[in-house]
Amino acid sequence: MAKTYKIAVIPGDGIGKEVTPWAQKALEQAAQGVAEFEYEHFDLGAERYLRDGAILPEDEEARIRANDAILLGAVGDPRIKAGILERGLLLKLRFDFDQYINLRPSKLYRGVTSPLANPGEIDFVVVREGTEGLYCGAGGAVRRGTPQEVATEVSINTAYGAERVVRYAFQLAMKRRKHVTLVHKKNVLVNAGDMWQRLVDKVGAEFPEVSHDYCHIDAATIYLVSDPGRFDVILTDNLFGDILTDEAGAVVGGVGYSASGCINATDEFPSMFEPIHGSAPDIAGQHKANPTAAILSAAMLLEHLGFDEAAQRIHRAVEADIAELGSTARTTEEVGRDILARM
Amino acid sequence: MAKTYKIAVIPGDGIGKEVTPWAQKALEQAAQGVAEFEYEHFDLGAERYLRDGAILPEDEEARIRANDAILLGAVGDPRIKAGILERGLLLKLRFDFDQYINLRPSKLYRGVTSPLANPGEIDFVVVREGTEGLYCGAGGAVRRGTPQEVATEVSINTAYGAERVVRYAFQLAMKRRKHVTLVHKKNVLVNAGDMWQRLVDKVGAEFPEVSHDYCHIDAATIYLVSDPGRFDVILTDNLFGDILTDEAGAVVGGVGYSASGCINATDEFPSMFEPIHGSAPDIAGQHKANPTAAILSAAMLLEHLGFDEAAQRIHRAVEADIAELGSTARTTEEVGRDILARM
Ligand SMILES: CC(C)[C@H](C(=O)O)[C@@H](O)C(=O)O
Ligand SMILES: CC(C)[C@H](C(=O)O)[C@@H](O)C(=O)O
Repeated sequence: MAKTYKIAVIPGDGIGKEVTPWAQKALEQAAQGVAEFEYEHFDLGAERYLRDGAILPEDEEARIRANDAILLGAVGDPRIKAGILERGLLLKLRFDFDQYINLRPSKLYRGVTSPLANPGEIDFVVVREGTEGLYCGAGGAVRRGTPQEVATEVSINTAYGAERVVRYAFQLAMKRRKHVTLVHKKNVLVNAGDMWQRLVDKVGAEFPEVSHDYCHIDAATIYLVSDPGRFDVILTDNLFGDILTDEAGAVVGGVGYSASGCINATDEFPSMFEPIHGSAPDIAGQHKANPTAAILSAAMLLEHLGFDEAAQRIHRAVEADIAELGSTARTTEEVGRDILARM
Repeated sequence: MAKTYKIAVIPGDGIGKEVTPWAQKALEQAAQGVAEFEYEHFDLGAERYLRDGAILPEDEEARIRANDAILLGAVGDPRIKAGILERGLLLKLRFDFDQYINLRPSKLYRGVTSPLANPGEIDFVVVREGTEGLYCGAGGAVRRGTPQEVATEVSINTAYGAERVVRYAFQLAMKRRKHVTLVHKKNVLVNAGDMWQRLVDKVGAEFPEVSHDYCHIDAATIYLVSDPGRFDVILTDNLFGDILTDEAGAVVGGVGYSASGCINATDEFPSMFEPIHGSAPDIAGQHKANPTAAILSAAMLLEHLGFDEAAQRIHRAVEADIAELGSTARTTEEVGRDILARM
């Protein structure tokens, strides 16, 4: 008998609401016969906040935590000051649930037009640290609004936090082309950069089959444009990972094809799966959002729960859909239905 | 009679040594009849450091300071631990001489092949803050080398430091297409991001003809690939500016065409002009380095000293050279001679 998994669904804002139902449908259909899903919906995001001021109430967070995994749409709304929903909801979940691996594959699908003239084959994964660095919320301001204002942001990095991510990257590389590239800015951020490099050297020694090299973040943004095929597993911190994965999304033809897993690999907390695109208020409500990234995040969720075959069903359907219809203008519903029909 | 200017020359490492003489020659020839130059060479960089351990001795820094401007090649050598020369020489000069404007134009020249399939017209300038943020060297580590290690990096941002850069960006936009885009990550780095945005709103009100908008750093890396023509003046902090200008260099066909000015606009200290490329140890000594970026940095130096017509002479020669021979494989010397011959 198929086991039942409990999934917390947070569609969020804008196009998040439009694409998330397709992630759920893909999940259902891909796992038919092997797993069943029970959904608990959470009304969190801009509308809820504007209605009653709640961002992530404690009891709701506890209920989310009781699930096996989380499907998230997107969070953010121009009516709300930058940072409130991001820090209070999205990043709070990543931090409170210790989702230390932020896994972001980038692949140029056949049928997708890259903005690069000669993209070559692109197929790499960014392993982004998810619970430290400049994202930890340390910092402050004095004399705000005066000519004497000083504002700080503090990046906190721990060997404990980084080493588990480094190890994950090498393990992942073993299942891939066996190459890890550390991206940092160790010639300027000498404290954190030096620690990352030492951990990579140390853990790397445990994986003699995996080669590793190093690349400054500025140089990495060049390579993503000039030679993206060189990368297999990119290992990096929270902020650099944010920047690189958006550029990578652009290079593989748009963030509409890029999914993301915020993973707690100990299973002490639920992991969270989301498209890397945002809420895109400019196109919300127009049935234009591409649900492919959300559907791919459902595949990542399945892999995380151990259903590799079911995840492959989604990957094959997405690949076939893009190869045949990738360049055709379609509505959210059309893309969703086309992909499901292939599964 | 032509006034004589004193120029400190720091060729530095690797290809820095190969391209800097061409910047000097271009300077001379472009300014013939209007300005004369007296050079003082400084043997600073990897070789000096390996020879006698000196990075930037106080008396040499004082002598550099006594010049009207600085021409720099590139600094960095794989034999030396990352950060030592960068922090001790390059960044020390930028900070000690309060070079708060890091000006980096990106232009797709006719005759250069962009890696983008449809680059369109690209012509923007990044105004990068040069003396604050994560580059200030604050931070440290405890329990280094143990599983309990904690490493921090602190970004310090002041209204004093940011406002002068914001104002410079708006002034520059007045001479261009009158649009400023602030790039930051204000949804995560809420203290610094909020300060930058408030300063842009405040200074922007003094420039009613200049429009301004805002873009997260991650989204900006997408736009540089998908729609670089949208930018006129990009205003950003030290780290984001580092990242964006390298990606921009790639998008306009390689950092070999990108120059940079580290400017103290008060003239209390000499400003410094350099190609944005590094010392490129992999191609050093092979006569392969393109001196165009170094030659363009000489044009920026001339503009800074007020010799716009002389600077234009360099720009026209570079443009003509690239349009005709941009795609021909040439040695450093050939490119240098070809550009000089057109002036
Ligand atoms: C919305 C924002 C806080 C978030 C981040 O910076 O991590 C997003 O850009 C992402 O990449 O998931
Ligand atoms: C060498 C390095 C310290 C420097 C920087 O990060 O500013 C370089 O990348 C640059 O952009 O000039």
